[in-house]
Amino acid sequence: MKKALLLLGCPEVPVQTGIALYLASSLKNAGLAVFAAGTDTALDLLKISDPKGCYLDPEKLIPLDTCIEALAEKRMDFDFCSVFVHNDAGLSYLATIPSISNAKLLAIIFGKDPEVLAGQIGFTCEKLIARSVHNPNPLKRKIDDAIPEVERWAASN
Amino acid sequence: MKKALLLLGCPEVPVQTGIALYLASSLKNAGLAVFAAGTDTALDLLKISDPKGCYLDPEKLIPLDTCIEALAEKRMDFDFCSVFVHNDAGLSYLATIPSISNAKLLAIIFGKDPEVLAGQIGFTCEKLIARSVHNPNPLKRKIDDAIPEVERWAASN
Repeated sequence: MKKALLLLGCPEVPVQTGIALYLASSLKNAGLAVFAAGTDTALDLLKISDPKGCYLDPEKLIPLDTCIEALAEKRMDFDFCSVFVHNDAGLSYLATIPSISNAKLLAIIFGKDPEVLAGQIGFTCEKLIARSVHNPNPLKRKIDDAIPEVERWAASN
Repeated sequence: MKKALLLLGCPEVPVQTGIALYLASSLKNAGLAVFAAGTDTALDLLKISDPKGCYLDPEKLIPLDTCIEALAEKRMDFDFCSVFVHNDAGLSYLATIPSISNAKLLAIIFGKDPEVLAGQIGFTCEKLIARSVHNPNPLKRKIDDAIPEVERWAASN
């Protein structure tokens, strides 16, 4: 079974938790084992929003530092990684992933000025870009458009 | 089966959606049929966070205006109502409910300055008050403390 990682930023943008759960559900439907890494607060928001673990298994939630360390030391890797980017810290994590992981990378760039953030990415990667702070729909539509390709990829090799 | 309503405010405080889903799950476990009312964006965040309807049945999500109107015209009522208050608009909805509904009322007061908001409530009602913006845990603990009493109430008469 292929493994997917959702790498979350600080939870100050209200759509992040909901979009992460929506993407987790879609990736699970596509046959992937879904993990999430984030700050304690980002993980607490996921747990509270999904108290029965319908979308994310509580055992598949990893503290951000533990996850980055394990990736850097090659003790862990994933087949697919979505990095949630809504500020500079998110950009730094996004830029780090290709050097420590072989995962197929998808950047989810949102918040108030996603185009500005996207313009600062100095390497090629797949991106979903949507101006989404409170209203999750612009980002949801981009995810819905992207999922069929992920499903095809997950079903292949 | 007793019916509970969660009345949500604008979704600018990141903990609101998660806490609403957590409370919905707890009330469902207590044997209540759980409905939620809110602005389109607040309801969209609930739907996206719970795409399979594990915690809130999509058919039990009601636009805020429709809900208030139906309560005022006595076409609808609930046994229990939790109003989420993190700004003045929330205070207004909270103050409206006792005049249009016979529901047992619980005010959930959160955000940056919940004590200031709570101080503006000019009538007696049960309140959970926690300074919670990104970190859901202070509010989660208050909900966990309140649920046993709600369970006893739900099981009685």
